[in-house]
Amino acid sequence: MKKIDVCLSPDLIHLYTVENKTVVIVDILRATSCMVTGLAHGVESLIPVATLEECRQHQCTGLIAAAERDGKKVEGFEIDNSPFSYMNPELKGKTIVMTTTNGTLALTKSAGAREILIGAFLNISYLKKYLISQNNDILIVCAAWKGKVNLEDTLFAGALVNELKEYVEYACDAPMLAETAYLAAKNNLFDYLKSSSHFNRLKKLNVMKDIEFCLRRDMYQVIPVLKQNKLVKLEQI
Amino acid sequence: MKKIDVCLSPDLIHLYTVENKTVVIVDILRATSCMVTGLAHGVESLIPVATLEECRQHQCTGLIAAAERDGKKVEGFEIDNSPFSYMNPELKGKTIVMTTTNGTLALTKSAGAREILIGAFLNISYLKKYLISQNNDILIVCAAWKGKVNLEDTLFAGALVNELKEYVEYACDAPMLAETAYLAAKNNLFDYLKSSSHFNRLKKLNVMKDIEFCLRRDMYQVIPVLKQNKLVKLEQI
Repeated sequence: MKKIDVCLSPDLIHLYTVENKTVVIVDILRATSCMVTGLAHGVESLIPVATLEECRQHQCTGLIAAAERDGKKVEGFEIDNSPFSYMNPELKGKTIVMTTTNGTLALTKSAGAREILIGAFLNISYLKKYLISQNNDILIVCAAWKGKVNLEDTLFAGALVNELKEYVEYACDAPMLAETAYLAAKNNLFDYLKSSSHFNRLKKLNVMKDIEFCLRRDMYQVIPVLKQNKLVKLEQI
Repeated sequence: MKKIDVCLSPDLIHLYTVENKTVVIVDILRATSCMVTGLAHGVESLIPVATLEECRQHQCTGLIAAAERDGKKVEGFEIDNSPFSYMNPELKGKTIVMTTTNGTLALTKSAGAREILIGAFLNISYLKKYLISQNNDILIVCAAWKGKVNLEDTLFAGALVNELKEYVEYACDAPMLAETAYLAAKNNLFDYLKSSSHFNRLKKLNVMKDIEFCLRRDMYQVIPVLKQNKLVKLEQI
């Protein structure tokens, strides 16, 4: 039986081997929710980069650039970190370079994995279907908040672990911890998350509509997969 | 209102400031449970050290030495990591030098804190009483398992957060995550922990009696506190 593990923060990634694993990156509010939304709405590919500097360099080559720090769009870049911005029909067929506070860092820290996928509530059932079909051990990497474990990514990890329960073996304690938290919160994720620190950070930025959207399940049948530093739609499903 | 935070692994300690805080170190299975038990049974002081080498050096000066790695007593040292070993009347009035896989590392990594205390289910109510009476912000540091977040320390952190709920403000998401897990598991911690990885590690070593003991609440009215590199009984309560 394949194993599943959960890395609750990119600052713990050194404790895990990624080489033979399918890694699922999670940054529910809002990077990975945006990635799924963008590809579902026709964006051709996304180039995730860790720093603003790299983002600017790609922008200079003519790409559309999305940059977020501390929940806010960075001046000089075209797109913010709202999933609704990724629905813009003008982005169809385009490549977007993207940097966020946590999500893109989790991605770059997972380099070397057999396969890197993007997870969100928006694509959880489709992701489940694919993860069952493939044979690698699975590692869910939560983007967290500047290294600190957060609720929304842990809850998603718990939801995915719970979906895969019959098909996997838990590698350590984090999958069970995340699942326990998810099962306790699942009847009303939005209300539960109202007490979370990032919710309150985003509340100040007036993005309640984004949060509500990011907690919806199964809006899209799309899995972003990293191919040569670009996130594109996974085709073999 | 004072703040409370939970560091789920010593590998995340760099994300927290300890300088003005009262830090509570937690290694339920079994280091901090042993420390509380030892001082409660008359051990005068405990010297926690991170490495076997340091432990040997102290042993050479004539101290009794306790060393555990991977759940087992290390050859050449007198005491293992069972709380029952710390009840031995021959240890009364003695100083013991002690190194364990995780607990003593969590302690040394918390150096610089305003105050460092030892927590366990065995002294949780007494600890609560003291933490309410003092005014520093509180950081609970889980010893975890070789850096990986574990269930038993997270559950204790959640239990302590829950006890202090009315007296503190949550600094970030980890206190709520730990509390949620604790509330889900509290009716039968032993059964819940049966699925944990460390439980199974220890089961192989036949220490069910230790685990059952380490999950008992309020056996002792003792708080070990670090004073000049020695753990001694906190007196001012």
